[in-house]
Amino acid sequence: MPLLTIYIATSLDGYIAQANDDLSFLKLVEKEGEDYGYAAFTDTIDTIILGRKTYDWVLKEIGPAHYDNGDRKVYVITRTEKPGIGNTTFYTGDLRELVQQLKSGNGKNIYCDGGAEIINELLQNDLIDEMILSIVPVLLGSGTRLFKSGRPQQELVLLQVKTFETGLTQLHYKRKKNEDQA
Amino acid sequence: MPLLTIYIATSLDGYIAQANDDLSFLKLVEKEGEDYGYAAFTDTIDTIILGRKTYDWVLKEIGPAHYDNGDRKVYVITRTEKPGIGNTTFYTGDLRELVQQLKSGNGKNIYCDGGAEIINELLQNDLIDEMILSIVPVLLGSGTRLFKSGRPQQELVLLQVKTFETGLTQLHYKRKKNEDQA
Repeated sequence: MPLLTIYIATSLDGYIAQANDDLSFLKLVEKEGEDYGYAAFTDTIDTIILGRKTYDWVLKEIGPAHYDNGDRKVYVITRTEKPGIGNTTFYTGDLRELVQQLKSGNGKNIYCDGGAEIINELLQNDLIDEMILSIVPVLLGSGTRLFKSGRPQQELVLLQVKTFETGLTQLHYKRKKNEDQA
Repeated sequence: MPLLTIYIATSLDGYIAQANDDLSFLKLVEKEGEDYGYAAFTDTIDTIILGRKTYDWVLKEIGPAHYDNGDRKVYVITRTEKPGIGNTTFYTGDLRELVQQLKSGNGKNIYCDGGAEIINELLQNDLIDEMILSIVPVLLGSGTRLFKSGRPQQELVLLQVKTFETGLTQLHYKRKKNEDQA
């Protein structure tokens, strides 16, 4: 069964962006030839789901080729109906139904590329199987929190920890299934 | 110069307690004979500062001997004047002045044992030298956040990462001095 994974960078104090979607804190850990496992990770996936605001940000800052390359399917979660472009579908339905449908396939894994709204809705519904969090060595002090409050408790299993010369620490967890919880 | 260090456990989503100061998530990582370096850490300190609410909680749940043992000095930060007890002083003055005074001594290090209010006030004033965060493998979903918003940005240097069989990961940082920041 395909797994739904988030792979995201956060400050130690839990922010994934500063005000106005400012991601400049990521520059603190930029290093020639170091992709923090991103290419290896994206080799394991064939589907991306992301929020509309994140999609717009990527279109503007990086360009359309970031998502729409190769055979990967891209689902942008939005409230506004819009015809698809290439492999990109604008999805206005129920997020749970989409994820359940994608997980019932026999493809590669599913990557949720944010933003925080979609991630928290997925967590609310216990739909995230694995999380790879890259902790950037900085306290940002304010911004967009990765984890919003008001979610259910969820136990995790630590799979792996990697450290890098830049001080970035990558924590990889899977969720503990309900039947395993104490 | 004595260093001011916090040593605290948090859930992956950044909570140090659930509603009503419930710390039962710490049971998820309790293991016979494993203290996660706490005894070795407390050997390096001779002074504890903590908030009044945290102090009251410890008195009630653990008992007065937890802090008032041996020669360690304990400063409880409070708004209510109260005579000291043993090595414990109830401090109603300015937190920055206390920390600057303690750091100007030549003793061992200073341990801030919480709670979140004191930690965030120390961060606001750039008074925390090192942080040892023990990440418990759970998403609590709600509770008391370790990091409140509205602080200044602070770059960190990763000193060490330790992982444990229970899935706890311990991240040890020092603050980057302003003159070192990019």
